[in-house]
Amino acid sequence: MRPVDKTHDPQLQSWVESANAPDTDFPIQNLPFCRFGESESETRIGVGIGDRILDLRETVRAGVFESTLAAALQQPTLREVMALGVADRIGLRRNISRLLSTGEDQLRDLTGGTRSLIVEQSAASMWVPVEVRDYTDFYASIFHATNVGSMFRPDNPLLPNYKYVPIGYHGRASSLVVSGTHIRRPIGQLSPDGDGGAPTREPCKLLDYELEVGCYVGPGNDLGTTIPIDRAEDHMFGLTLVNDWSARDMQRWEYQPLGPFLAKSFATTVSPWVVTLEALAPFRCAAFERPRGDPSPLDYLSLESNETGGGFDLRLAVSLRSEQMRERGLAPHEISRGTFRDMYWTLAQMLTHHGSNGCNMRPGDLLASGTVSNRARTSRGCLLELTWDGELDDPVPGTQRTPIELPTGEKRKFLADGDEVIFHGYCEATGRRRIGMGECRGTILGAPSAL
Amino acid sequence: MRPVDKTHDPQLQSWVESANAPDTDFPIQNLPFCRFGESESETRIGVGIGDRILDLRETVRAGVFESTLAAALQQPTLREVMALGVADRIGLRRNISRLLSTGEDQLRDLTGGTRSLIVEQSAASMWVPVEVRDYTDFYASIFHATNVGSMFRPDNPLLPNYKYVPIGYHGRASSLVVSGTHIRRPIGQLSPDGDGGAPTREPCKLLDYELEVGCYVGPGNDLGTTIPIDRAEDHMFGLTLVNDWSARDMQRWEYQPLGPFLAKSFATTVSPWVVTLEALAPFRCAAFERPRGDPSPLDYLSLESNETGGGFDLRLAVSLRSEQMRERGLAPHEISRGTFRDMYWTLAQMLTHHGSNGCNMRPGDLLASGTVSNRARTSRGCLLELTWDGELDDPVPGTQRTPIELPTGEKRKFLADGDEVIFHGYCEATGRRRIGMGECRGTILGAPSAL
Repeated sequence: MRPVDKTHDPQLQSWVESANAPDTDFPIQNLPFCRFGESESETRIGVGIGDRILDLRETVRAGVFESTLAAALQQPTLREVMALGVADRIGLRRNISRLLSTGEDQLRDLTGGTRSLIVEQSAASMWVPVEVRDYTDFYASIFHATNVGSMFRPDNPLLPNYKYVPIGYHGRASSLVVSGTHIRRPIGQLSPDGDGGAPTREPCKLLDYELEVGCYVGPGNDLGTTIPIDRAEDHMFGLTLVNDWSARDMQRWEYQPLGPFLAKSFATTVSPWVVTLEALAPFRCAAFERPRGDPSPLDYLSLESNETGGGFDLRLAVSLRSEQMRERGLAPHEISRGTFRDMYWTLAQMLTHHGSNGCNMRPGDLLASGTVSNRARTSRGCLLELTWDGELDDPVPGTQRTPIELPTGEKRKFLADGDEVIFHGYCEATGRRRIGMGECRGTILGAPSAL
Repeated sequence: MRPVDKTHDPQLQSWVESANAPDTDFPIQNLPFCRFGESESETRIGVGIGDRILDLRETVRAGVFESTLAAALQQPTLREVMALGVADRIGLRRNISRLLSTGEDQLRDLTGGTRSLIVEQSAASMWVPVEVRDYTDFYASIFHATNVGSMFRPDNPLLPNYKYVPIGYHGRASSLVVSGTHIRRPIGQLSPDGDGGAPTREPCKLLDYELEVGCYVGPGNDLGTTIPIDRAEDHMFGLTLVNDWSARDMQRWEYQPLGPFLAKSFATTVSPWVVTLEALAPFRCAAFERPRGDPSPLDYLSLESNETGGGFDLRLAVSLRSEQMRERGLAPHEISRGTFRDMYWTLAQMLTHHGSNGCNMRPGDLLASGTVSNRARTSRGCLLELTWDGELDDPVPGTQRTPIELPTGEKRKFLADGDEVIFHGYCEATGRRRIGMGECRGTILGAPSAL
């Protein structure tokens, strides 16, 4: 088990008052990293504390932070911080925790001066925390895989490799956008109506979100080497929320034989916040217990020597707000609630598998979990599953679906223009401060007028 | 048609003598770009001429090259040159052609001085020309798709979407390596023998190459916008040779439902040379003629207003040299020969399709064509196809195959440790200087000892 040190002490308070509010995502026990700044070419990195951001570049420059990590902390993105070894990461967390604690005056006093070491989150422009060089999307919820498989391949929902291979595919890195970026409904080829007909090209009709948890890679491995499963968590920097927007009608037509492509590559939204493995240490839990009769993972993916349990007791929720709701001043409406506990594969298994053929993982690479769906109907992580009645005689998405009803009386089977989708994630336990993941949100814009 | 200007004049000669040899890949009519330098953090860009490289950074610094492009030419990689608009690209080509032409003394005279403007290729360390941010692999040969489909899905070799969708998938960018890099045989999960059994984890037994042509993206498009088909070639900087190494046994087990993953991500080799669209202008040809009865491409992929024909009259050859052949001093043995002319989809169609959902293409992104196979058996671009007897009752790769025989008497169904695979590509036409693509080569090393 990673040490649960005094940075987790629930009594610890910060001189940044908003961090002491009981419902904040970012108490001093969290300290999530982010990247912010006026323009993409003028960014710096920071740490979330209550409703503020500690500007790490300015903190280093102010000289209060005697750190051998000064170079990494002054970079415009989080790449060099992500590349740090575990010991450095832990040391950095302790330092930042100390500087922000009640009774530590040095930093607090400086914030009143000419330097602006602390900025308001509401006034800051946030960015994708690092230029992600490779983005990989997994498929690690067996409930999601089974539901989607039932719709796309009714004869053969869960393929024989699923319980042996953490199935994943390479995603598109260029179209990763930060929470708050509007999402343009894509235009694409949709399946022909009958067999042998021509597809049409038109705006996607079955636009969906996918609730996922992402993991930024830490130091990583060189090409030709691997990451042993018992060291995998040393190479996991931190977690974030990911929305893998999906055009289901485009996906259905294009995805064979090489997998999803344009149905996903138009945009993927990430939260601006990266919650470190150190912050999540008190909320680790056992990995999902495989049902009796399921095979054990092959040795290279075995969790038997795992010190952290492998799982994360992370709760997730999805809310939706339509344009009409926004106009009427209604709050977002929660449409599902689930947990990241019961993924069939752990993030460590995904990372180790990814590098198991010698493929190099680099600092800042992003691994996403795939849609987080649980057994319960109300915990399904996308509309494709959530509005589906679950009968195997309903193979075609978009037909015979049970819509979600919004407080305005509007109904949704898939997303409409103007809909805003908001993800939240948080860890809670008795006697602990709540650790939140921040938000991952996006609003759908109408398709472009020109085809 | 792009202008075929005097930079293509077959009479044009260079004061770099080796560029005037009739069999060189790099006459003054070619001028391919590359990236070279002692270490990866100390690279610069250059242009191939005969058996030399013109160092563009030093050329700019020597002041002989009055250019508004000076900043781009002094970068460590080709990204900023790739980002140039077509007019700048053409102007740059004219300038370099003039500087290297017989009778132009300025640059030649300087090379005798203290500055080393021209270096020998044989003495230079070559690098992947640009840090590729997104690498996409297509599947654009209908002959390849049909052959592979026959083996992997005997009931259903060519899927209904193939003639409408330029099928592609995202590849792994981190493991792109430059020609000459040794390739470690990967270890991975191989299919269980019978139904319902557990897979084994062992070194890949069915290791293969895939002969592909790559295209580096030029300026590209912003997220949410598209690249119209009649402007697509403005966003194609140049072509290169790509070897998409493939572990067929891993691929067969893992590839459903999300496509190839670890079977490909252990390494992809690229040639160090990028041959520009301007250099290839005299060798453009009509796109592949679709067989009668095949549907026309949808409007957004229509080539009707195409000015260049869409195709490239580019010939390709694959050679193999075993360790035994190397020890006996034997030359590489040619095992296939084909053409890039008859791909079902043009590179322009692939690029336009890729951006058609609003996905942003960025300078230096790499699009690969997929395996280039033609109708003839001797033109198949990978061993999976080349050693397969082509009968539909032979669905399992590795069985009932007709091996290739090497000059030593050795036989190959798939690659053995020590085998070296070498790709060549070139354009030839009566009255024109030959334009070569350089080489793309790699040698197989044994699997790592630890699993």
